[in-house]
Amino acid sequence: MDERREQLIAVALDLFSRRPPEEVSIDDIAAAAGASRPLVYHYFPGKQALYEESLRRAGRELAGRFEEPADGPLSERLYRVMGRYLDFVQSHGPGFAALLRGGSVAASAGTSAVIDEVRRAAHDQILSHLAVPSPSPGLRLTVRAWIANAEITSLEWLGERSVPLEELQLHLVQEFVAALTLTAAREPALAAELAGFFAAEHPAGPAGRLVRELAGLFAVPGIADAVAALAVEPAN
Amino acid sequence: MDERREQLIAVALDLFSRRPPEEVSIDDIAAAAGASRPLVYHYFPGKQALYEESLRRAGRELAGRFEEPADGPLSERLYRVMGRYLDFVQSHGPGFAALLRGGSVAASAGTSAVIDEVRRAAHDQILSHLAVPSPSPGLRLTVRAWIANAEITSLEWLGERSVPLEELQLHLVQEFVAALTLTAAREPALAAELAGFFAAEHPAGPAGRLVRELAGLFAVPGIADAVAALAVEPAN
Repeated sequence: MDERREQLIAVALDLFSRRPPEEVSIDDIAAAAGASRPLVYHYFPGKQALYEESLRRAGRELAGRFEEPADGPLSERLYRVMGRYLDFVQSHGPGFAALLRGGSVAASAGTSAVIDEVRRAAHDQILSHLAVPSPSPGLRLTVRAWIANAEITSLEWLGERSVPLEELQLHLVQEFVAALTLTAAREPALAAELAGFFAAEHPAGPAGRLVRELAGLFAVPGIADAVAALAVEPAN
Repeated sequence: MDERREQLIAVALDLFSRRPPEEVSIDDIAAAAGASRPLVYHYFPGKQALYEESLRRAGRELAGRFEEPADGPLSERLYRVMGRYLDFVQSHGPGFAALLRGGSVAASAGTSAVIDEVRRAAHDQILSHLAVPSPSPGLRLTVRAWIANAEITSLEWLGERSVPLEELQLHLVQEFVAALTLTAAREPALAAELAGFFAAEHPAGPAGRLVRELAGLFAVPGIADAVAALAVEPAN
């Protein structure tokens, strides 16, 4: 491993995390690394190659943050994962936003491949925690859509920072629990698995808090009655 | 309005709907329009300009499909909107997929702007149906995340077509109802609005069907008990 090359990548990653790619030049990277411009070009044909290599490193790191031991209630595992994910988002904010917003001059098949790789890693990790023997297309789609939700939510948060990060972390996990419940409502084969998930949850965890929040909502005048009226099979 | 130019855009849109942009050449467009290559260049500086113009037209059409009269239950309005949206996705499949997947050589700030414009139109239309006087950041985010869900879901469907389109249409609407309920569980100010939505729903509509699906799920042995155990405030 060439240390000088590694150092250039680390410096580039730091700069590309803090600014959109079009605002980082080879000169900026050379200056921050205490290197000459020709030295940078000795290792990389140009800014795009250095950008893509630093993205690949960042992608690998982010994918690693989805790894979590298969211990304890599902919602608490996911809560820890989301803590690490959001910490990454926060520390790589402007670069993360520029990458996911797309339309950057530096967007390419290479940068799309990095995004897809991270999404796939997140999807596979989450499915492995669900431990459903052969996940249906519907369940896979639920996981994919929830990952998109996490991306959108963290992008919006980077722009406005209108709520504490811990709130996002909790909400995203609760949204996953809700999405899983909806999927099980459509797919009878998942119902027994869902019973197992809920049985392992703690009242103080994200799923328990969600159940109590929903119970509070259904205590609001009118809601329980309106929902009960919908539970009646239509005459038709 | 120049008819020849309009015809070229219509032909280009048709070709860009059926193939990713890198598989459509100026020659293809000229041939399909019965025009000469120089004539195409008379109207457009190159393929990218023609691609972006045809995308703008498609974006305007798609945005228009989110318009829906403010009549009847919310879930039924959204069901009609999603029918038109999914019909668009189906008829512009390969182009829609290439655009949203990004990483295409034709992706640019211009194509991103079109995507953003459609997302904004969808967001604004849905919020207008909710008719909440001043939508909170949390509610806006719920709408944005659900739009991302609709995009991901329709992209996946284009790849696999594993379920009938009507099923997606129903599921997406039900996921919106669930996401709105979750948001109201966190935001007491929305609870009264939610009661109003549910009161206006019909048992035979998407929300009614969802309620009965969830009731069926909670009748599965173990689920209601496990959830009831989570409803108890933890001793701490």
